[in-house]
Amino acid sequence: MEIEMTDLDYRIILPLIKPADAEAVHEAQKRMDSLIKPLGSLGRLEEIAVRIAGVTGCVKNDVSRKCTIVMAADNGICEEGVASTPKEITLVQAINMTRGICGIGVLSRVAGADLCVVDIGIDSDLKSDRWIDAKIRRGTANFAKGPAMSREEAERAINVGIKTVAEQAGKGVKIIGTGEMGIGNTSSSSAVIMALTGAKADDAVGRGGGLTAAACEHKKRVIENALALNDPDAADPVDVVAKVGGFDIAGLMGCFIGASYFRIPIVVDGVISVAAALAAFRMNERIRDFMIASHLSKEPAYRIAQNEMGLSPMLDMDMRLGEGTGCPLAYGIIDAACAVMNDMATFEELAIDREYRVDNRNKEV
Amino acid sequence: MEIEMTDLDYRIILPLIKPADAEAVHEAQKRMDSLIKPLGSLGRLEEIAVRIAGVTGCVKNDVSRKCTIVMAADNGICEEGVASTPKEITLVQAINMTRGICGIGVLSRVAGADLCVVDIGIDSDLKSDRWIDAKIRRGTANFAKGPAMSREEAERAINVGIKTVAEQAGKGVKIIGTGEMGIGNTSSSSAVIMALTGAKADDAVGRGGGLTAAACEHKKRVIENALALNDPDAADPVDVVAKVGGFDIAGLMGCFIGASYFRIPIVVDGVISVAAALAAFRMNERIRDFMIASHLSKEPAYRIAQNEMGLSPMLDMDMRLGEGTGCPLAYGIIDAACAVMNDMATFEELAIDREYRVDNRNKEV
Repeated sequence: MEIEMTDLDYRIILPLIKPADAEAVHEAQKRMDSLIKPLGSLGRLEEIAVRIAGVTGCVKNDVSRKCTIVMAADNGICEEGVASTPKEITLVQAINMTRGICGIGVLSRVAGADLCVVDIGIDSDLKSDRWIDAKIRRGTANFAKGPAMSREEAERAINVGIKTVAEQAGKGVKIIGTGEMGIGNTSSSSAVIMALTGAKADDAVGRGGGLTAAACEHKKRVIENALALNDPDAADPVDVVAKVGGFDIAGLMGCFIGASYFRIPIVVDGVISVAAALAAFRMNERIRDFMIASHLSKEPAYRIAQNEMGLSPMLDMDMRLGEGTGCPLAYGIIDAACAVMNDMATFEELAIDREYRVDNRNKEV
Repeated sequence: MEIEMTDLDYRIILPLIKPADAEAVHEAQKRMDSLIKPLGSLGRLEEIAVRIAGVTGCVKNDVSRKCTIVMAADNGICEEGVASTPKEITLVQAINMTRGICGIGVLSRVAGADLCVVDIGIDSDLKSDRWIDAKIRRGTANFAKGPAMSREEAERAINVGIKTVAEQAGKGVKIIGTGEMGIGNTSSSSAVIMALTGAKADDAVGRGGGLTAAACEHKKRVIENALALNDPDAADPVDVVAKVGGFDIAGLMGCFIGASYFRIPIVVDGVISVAAALAAFRMNERIRDFMIASHLSKEPAYRIAQNEMGLSPMLDMDMRLGEGTGCPLAYGIIDAACAVMNDMATFEELAIDREYRVDNRNKEV
């Protein structure tokens, strides 16, 4: 079934997502088990290669064309003093990203990955041809005082994510990473994860970019009160993200939905990314099959969402920068996983080869 | 002080190892803290870049030339039925390594790393120009019945490791990885770590390549009895490795000593590598400053040695293949750590730049 770009609405796409290709998974596992190593001894490297086979339907995959999508947006909740950094930094860092001088820019270059920055709600009128202009509004409303955005805005932001993935898929990108820039977005992410799981602030709220212990206590109370005020419906992830989320989270939700529809593996980064992943997962559990977790974020809400979905992050780096910085680190490992599947010899190949070698034993080793 | 290759004896080298360059560490930490990110937010990526500065004495480093040294040797302890794989596989896999078709070969290619296979004690007379012939003997003696090797043999094997690193350093290699091939070597490694730390078999001995639970219980008793019989001196790591170690472990000990002397960062792989690292560390604690831990091995003795040295492995992949397979996965992360240090902008650079940009605000973003 062909989908027009104009049809890229999450309500159309979501029910069309097919599960992991069971036959490809079976064939991939069979090949993995035939490689010259003890069964299962490459652990998560094996899991990743088999998972990607389920996504693409092919046993052997080449995911060398990579792109990290960064959703940048401001958050009205910053008015409550929940962030250690002034909100103007959202714009500054989005600019720096397009110039390759901040964390995600440098790491993407090392990984040979593209970076696609999307202005989905930066509080500025600045235009740039180095990012995609998909601004829903100049930042969300302060969700301590009412909903962050309308449901219609959340839906538009989700569709921005789907369209961004569709464009990257059209360019031949074989793996998508999920990054963000938005001062205040560990608050919105914690709120979304708390609303979806029922977790308490003491278990879910962390220090973000670098809050003091006292400021972190304040952040917990702000989020608790905001959840009580907005009363989001845990069974309706769009309602949750609209009321206590952010445009970045909604955009990334769309990325997870889109990647699953277009059958592209998608890498989960830190707590903002995993909040979006969990919201998408709650709309369609099949989306889980398309995710690869990069690193264990230091933000406590990360673990809650991770456990809900049974994700196993491969890196433990004590990182809490965000921006999508876990993704380029993971790409190298994912390439390695694919190379194991593609290039390692099987016991059978070796047996054939050994016969050949016996006949030639004096000629070569 | 110039050292001749003939002087590459561990007794000469060990006392000459200088500590991490404190001034370079200080300057590197200062630069890291000036980069445009919240302080410490890149976690272990920051630690790795700062540690490498301490090794090389330079704040900015390029470690793109990499080599994993694989020490291959047989183990007499296999006679006791402690391994799930026949011992002939040591030779077969050493050959496969030089042909690039097994795990470490495939992963090295993806990482753009060299592989240097050293026959330090394979039980075969096969010669190959694709590996370094530094055979001490065709496999160790069965240490369930007496010492695995003589002290003089252990010393020669250590010096092989030092010389191998010296050769790689001469070729311009900037980072060394430590791999091994030797059926039965989780037994020798567990025995070495138990002897050096006093750990008990129930805490230190694992299933290696794939033992059943019953076979693993047998392996524990074999190692306990062998330790009681050989009674290695925990204060003398050479005695420990000679009595219950292997040629591969002794060779890798030499790699850790040599890399520290030649001031090259050295990557720790799994349980065999970490046993060698611990033995070297016990001879000179400064060697700790030159190590970077790649992944958390599934073998239980790994954690014991890790904790002794305060290592923080960056990857959690449930891997237990050995061969050095954690090293190529780590190289990409280490390159990323160096790129953060080398290429991210500082707040100061940005301030200067911002003034420039204000004057040109209509011309570019």
